[in-house]
Amino acid sequence: METNNILIKNSIILNPKATGTVDEYKSSLLIENNKISLISEDIEDSNADYIIDAQGKILMPGLINTHSHIPMTLFRGYADDLNLDTWLNDYIWPIESHLNSETIYNGTMLGAIEMIKSGTTTFSDMYFYMGDVAKAIGKAGIRGVLSYSMIDFGDEQKRENEFKESISLIKNHHNTYDGRITTMFGPHSIYTTSPELLRRVRKEANKYNLGIHIHMNETQKEIDDCMDLRGIRPFEYLDDLGILSDDIIAAHCVWLSDNEIDLIKKYDVKVSHNPCSNAKLASGIAPISKLIDNGICVSIGTDGSSSNNNLDMFEEMKFTALLQKAQTLNPEVLSAERTLSLATINGANALGLENLGSIEEGKLADIILINTNRPNFSPINNNTCSNIVYSANGSNVDSTIVNGEILMENRKLTNLNETDILKNANETIDEMIKLKD
Amino acid sequence: METNNILIKNSIILNPKATGTVDEYKSSLLIENNKISLISEDIEDSNADYIIDAQGKILMPGLINTHSHIPMTLFRGYADDLNLDTWLNDYIWPIESHLNSETIYNGTMLGAIEMIKSGTTTFSDMYFYMGDVAKAIGKAGIRGVLSYSMIDFGDEQKRENEFKESISLIKNHHNTYDGRITTMFGPHSIYTTSPELLRRVRKEANKYNLGIHIHMNETQKEIDDCMDLRGIRPFEYLDDLGILSDDIIAAHCVWLSDNEIDLIKKYDVKVSHNPCSNAKLASGIAPISKLIDNGICVSIGTDGSSSNNNLDMFEEMKFTALLQKAQTLNPEVLSAERTLSLATINGANALGLENLGSIEEGKLADIILINTNRPNFSPINNNTCSNIVYSANGSNVDSTIVNGEILMENRKLTNLNETDILKNANETIDEMIKLKD
Repeated sequence: METNNILIKNSIILNPKATGTVDEYKSSLLIENNKISLISEDIEDSNADYIIDAQGKILMPGLINTHSHIPMTLFRGYADDLNLDTWLNDYIWPIESHLNSETIYNGTMLGAIEMIKSGTTTFSDMYFYMGDVAKAIGKAGIRGVLSYSMIDFGDEQKRENEFKESISLIKNHHNTYDGRITTMFGPHSIYTTSPELLRRVRKEANKYNLGIHIHMNETQKEIDDCMDLRGIRPFEYLDDLGILSDDIIAAHCVWLSDNEIDLIKKYDVKVSHNPCSNAKLASGIAPISKLIDNGICVSIGTDGSSSNNNLDMFEEMKFTALLQKAQTLNPEVLSAERTLSLATINGANALGLENLGSIEEGKLADIILINTNRPNFSPINNNTCSNIVYSANGSNVDSTIVNGEILMENRKLTNLNETDILKNANETIDEMIKLKD
Repeated sequence: METNNILIKNSIILNPKATGTVDEYKSSLLIENNKISLISEDIEDSNADYIIDAQGKILMPGLINTHSHIPMTLFRGYADDLNLDTWLNDYIWPIESHLNSETIYNGTMLGAIEMIKSGTTTFSDMYFYMGDVAKAIGKAGIRGVLSYSMIDFGDEQKRENEFKESISLIKNHHNTYDGRITTMFGPHSIYTTSPELLRRVRKEANKYNLGIHIHMNETQKEIDDCMDLRGIRPFEYLDDLGILSDDIIAAHCVWLSDNEIDLIKKYDVKVSHNPCSNAKLASGIAPISKLIDNGICVSIGTDGSSSNNNLDMFEEMKFTALLQKAQTLNPEVLSAERTLSLATINGANALGLENLGSIEEGKLADIILINTNRPNFSPINNNTCSNIVYSANGSNVDSTIVNGEILMENRKLTNLNETDILKNANETIDEMIKLKD
C-alpha cells in the first residue's frame, strides 16, 4: 500500500543503540514519504494520509539480516542432518544445477514474504542469478544488499566471468528501486577463490566504492586447510593480500585465533554471526561475546534456509544470546538489549546503511509493529526487550513498513499475493527435484 | 467445544516411534469420545458429529512438555541475564512470596493458553499451590501431571508439611477431570531436601503407585556441593538412598559422570532435557546424544517461563537438535525424526502415559493439526518432519485436541476467553510487583 504520510499513534517505541542499550518510551511517530519525520506525543491526525492506531503495540526498527542466500528457501527441509560433504555433493550442488531465472525469482519471493511476515526489512545476500533476486526484491518491497557469489577455483576464464557477473549486477541494479536495492562484491570464500580474484575484488570495490561480503572461518577444516596450504590462518591470509578494511562483512567467524581477532578489530571488519546455521551444520559456536568485548561490530544473519531452516530473526536473536550464555557459562553475557542492538543498529552499521537500524527523526522509515496481546508476549510490563528477544517469534510481528511503504498490516500482506507465491515456490521445487532424479 | 465423534479428513499423519523414526502417510482419522477409534482412508462422514477438513494439514500427537513450572509464566521477562544468586535472591523468591491461590490460577491459565496455542497437550509440572493449578488445568482442558514442590532443608516440621501438601494434592486431584489430571511426588532437588524426605518420598510413591519428579545435576555447583558434602555425585547419592527406579523423571541432567549415566541406564530413570533454560541460566548443555546412544529415555521440557522465556515446544525441539550438533560437532546426531520422538512418544513414556504420544487406534485423542500453508513451512514436500523441528514454531499450530475435545480450531480457542485471561495475568503480575516494591 503506497501512502505519503503515515501517522502511527500511541506506540511503545523501542530504540536500540550501538552501545547495547535500548531506549523505551511511549510516543506517536510520523512518516513522510520514506522517512521518519517526527517523533512526538502530539501529532495532529491532519498531518497524515493514513493513521495506524498502535495502542499497546511496540514500534521498533525492522530487523536486519546480514547474511543470507534467499533463493535457498526452495531447499528448506531438502537435506538435513548430514555431514557437509554429503550435504553439498549429493544434495545441494546437484539441485542447484537446476536453478534458472524463474526458479530463483520464485524462491526469492518465498524468502521475501517470510522476511516481511517475520519483521525483517533489510537483508544482505550472496548467491547466483542476483539480477533475478533484485527483480523479485524490487517487487516485494524490502531492502536488499546483493552480492553475486564469486568462485574461480584459480581458473582465469572463470574469474573473468565472475567479475563480468558482479559488475553487471552493480551496473544494472545498484541503487535501484528508490535505493532499496544496493550491491556489494561477494567473493565466496578463501577456499573457493584465488588470491588474484581477492586482490582484484579489493581494487574494484574501491573503484565502485562498495563493500565486500565473504564467508570466513566457518569450519575447523577451513582453518586447517588454510594452515596446510599457506602456513597462516584465513584472516592473516587476507591481511597478507592487503584487502582487509572496514567495508568487509565476514560471515560466520566461528574459529578465530587471538591474532585474527586483533586483525578484525584493527581493520574494523564487520562480523555476521549465524548461530542456527553454525549449530545445525555442526560448525561450532562463534565467540561473539569476546568479539563484542573487543569493540568489534557483530550483527546477525540467518544464512540460507537449507541450513537453519527459517529466516526468523527473532529466533536467531534468542539463539545468539542463549548460545553465548551456554558456551561461556555466564548468564550475564549478551543481554536482551545488547542482542537486539546486534539485529538492528549493528546490522545497519555493518552494511554501511547509517540511515537505518534505529528509530530517529530523519532516518528511513523501516519499521515493524509488534502485537503484545498474545500469550507468549504476556505479561507485557515486565520487560519489553526481554519479551522481544526471549519470548517472541516472527509471528508476533503485526505490521511491516519499508521505505515508508506498508508491506504488511495486521499480518496481511498489502502488495503481494501470498497464496500464489507459496504455490509457485512449491511447484518450482517439486519440478526441480523431478529434473534432478 | 465438546463433541462425541470427530472425523478429521485427508490429513498427512506424522507418527513418531520410540526408535526415533517417524511414519508419514495420508489418511483420515476418527475420534470417538476421547480416543482415536479408526485410522483409515475411507471413513464415512456419517460416523461423525463434527468433521474437520484437514487437506494439506499435518496431524500429529500433541507435544509433551516433561518439565515446567506453569504459574511462572507470570514472571516472563521479570528477571533476565542475571547470575543465579541475584536471580533467585533479589527477584524470584521475593516475588514468589506474593503468590496465592488467585495469582497461581491466573498464571496457570496464561500458561495453559500458551500451551494450547503452541500445540502442547500434556505437561509435567512442579510448583506450589498445585490444587489451584489443577483447578485451572481442569478448566483449560489440557492434560497435566502435577507435583507439589517439596523442600524441607532438613527441618522436620517443614518435612511433615510437605508430605501433607503432597498427599492432599494426590487425594484431591489425582485422576480427576476424566483422567486429565494426574499427580506425582515432587521432591525439589537433593540440595533443598533431606535424605529423610527423599527416603520417605520413595516409600509413599510406592504406596500410591506414583512417579517422582525431581531436579537433578542442573549446575556444576550442585555437583561440587554434593561432592564436598557427601564425597559422591548426586545420582550416586540417590542410589545410596535406594530410591532410584524407572518411575523417576529427572529434570536437567546437565552435568553427568559416566558412572551416573550407568546408574540412569541401570534403573531406567527418565531424563527431561531443558535446553533453553540450561542455556539461558548458563548451566550448560546436557549430553543427551550420549544418553540416547545409551538407550536412556530422554524427553523435552521448557522449564518455567522465567528462564526460557516461553513454553513453545517447537522452539525447544529446534534448540535440542541444534545444541547437540554444535556441542558434538557432528551434524548427524539428533535428527529431526529423533527429536520429534523426544517431544512426543518419549514424553509419554517418561510420564508413564502409555496411551499417549503417538497416533494409533485405541490411544487417547491428544492431537494437533499443523497449517502447512505458511511461508516458514514451504516448500511442504521436501521433508515434513524437518519442517516441524527446524522451521516451524508454535504459531504454525492450527488446531489442538485433548482427550477428544477441540480446544483450538483455526487458532481460535473454543472454550476459553483469551482476552480475559491475558488481562487477568497482566493485572496479577502488576499488582504483585506493587506489593513487592
